[in-house]
Amino acid sequence: MNGSALTVDLVGSGNVAFHLAQRFSKVGVLLRSVYARDLSKIKTFPSGCAPLPFDDLHAHDATVPLIIAVSDDAIPAVAGKIPKNCTVLHTSGSVPLDALPQSKRGVLYPLQSFSHAQEIDWTDLPLIIEASEDETGTHVDQLANQLSNRVVTLTSQQRLHLHLAAVIVNNFVNHLFGLSAGYLESKQLPFDLLQPLIRQTAEKIVNMTPVAAQTGPAKRNDQTTIKRHLDMLENHPDARAVYELLSQQIIRLHHER
Amino acid sequence: MNGSALTVDLVGSGNVAFHLAQRFSKVGVLLRSVYARDLSKIKTFPSGCAPLPFDDLHAHDATVPLIIAVSDDAIPAVAGKIPKNCTVLHTSGSVPLDALPQSKRGVLYPLQSFSHAQEIDWTDLPLIIEASEDETGTHVDQLANQLSNRVVTLTSQQRLHLHLAAVIVNNFVNHLFGLSAGYLESKQLPFDLLQPLIRQTAEKIVNMTPVAAQTGPAKRNDQTTIKRHLDMLENHPDARAVYELLSQQIIRLHHER
Repeated sequence: MNGSALTVDLVGSGNVAFHLAQRFSKVGVLLRSVYARDLSKIKTFPSGCAPLPFDDLHAHDATVPLIIAVSDDAIPAVAGKIPKNCTVLHTSGSVPLDALPQSKRGVLYPLQSFSHAQEIDWTDLPLIIEASEDETGTHVDQLANQLSNRVVTLTSQQRLHLHLAAVIVNNFVNHLFGLSAGYLESKQLPFDLLQPLIRQTAEKIVNMTPVAAQTGPAKRNDQTTIKRHLDMLENHPDARAVYELLSQQIIRLHHER
Repeated sequence: MNGSALTVDLVGSGNVAFHLAQRFSKVGVLLRSVYARDLSKIKTFPSGCAPLPFDDLHAHDATVPLIIAVSDDAIPAVAGKIPKNCTVLHTSGSVPLDALPQSKRGVLYPLQSFSHAQEIDWTDLPLIIEASEDETGTHVDQLANQLSNRVVTLTSQQRLHLHLAAVIVNNFVNHLFGLSAGYLESKQLPFDLLQPLIRQTAEKIVNMTPVAAQTGPAKRNDQTTIKRHLDMLENHPDARAVYELLSQQIIRLHHER
């Protein structure tokens, strides 16, 4: 963030750190060094960045901003090792900006689910940013705009709301996929038959609200089908409990207002 | 199904009938006539097919197979109007083959969610087929293979299982989208920020099982975050009940086995 090409350092060797390093390399942000607990993991990172042990954090050079991409729980301890005069950003959806003790602190939260193997489309990936003061804010904004076309400034509280909403559409939706897959497996039927439907369900709400897009037995208040499905789920108590609760909610939402 | 180009007739003017008619036109299946309760709806169908009133069903010409694409509840009444010597197929996921009184009966169930406005990618759309006897089976198979590259023969019972699994990944997942959107709306935050995450969640399970793809506070058994999220949902009882139930299930699945 000094000179013409942005230069940053990174802490962490997990999926977020890995994909950030890939993206930096792609867009010409210079990644100088990566601090990691397990230095062997840095081997899969783009070449050119120097691996450094966690213990060197206390001697971090304040001229280069440091991005902490470690698990939420580990952020306070990691940030505590870094000198107070450094510029420090974290990448978490739910950790407040003020969890960082440095006065030049910021957030760069990529609203996406990262796995090592899966490529990330950064062009429209929402980057949620926040900063403690204007100078750091300008730096974070500049960096974020190099990475994505979709940069949004929010408060820590708003970011927390967004993270909760993300848990619902990511973690809980994935659990429903698991319930559906488990049921089909017990009937020796292949889950991948549902793949086009799953893709379409996700695409449908680009142009429609979820309430308008709702279909199915509960939307029609079709008690015969609901009863039959609950009977079919007799030996699948988790799926049955979900079926019952969500059907009740959908019926109430669409028939009792 | 006689001569070189397949010829079919259709009953219904809803989304499934509309998209089938489009697909027939695209792949060169000749759609001779469409029976509909509301003939004005046929105006949006590809040109060349004759609109016919429901009342003409009793005089249907047995040389052309008839595909019933009406709501599940209406299938028995519609099928009952059609002469017993006709070849009749329905397109439902949950109605048994034997709900059709004709001896030459079959099923052609497109495992997808159809809305009028949204284009359908038919190339890998799973078509689940079934037939009462070999001759009809050959006809259904031939027709289905013209429409899609992914044709699967299942029993009525297996189709029922698949339909239940589809309700979970389509109707219930969409309801979770609605809970998430409702929460964000109450905080004046735009739901479309979640769109890339929703797409990625759907894509992730192409190469991973849902159990392996699971992430989030419940997967980590992170009680601090779960407690905070439940507090944040205090005024959103539906989302709160879903959060509580699904978190319990994910914790049990990943920590108590």
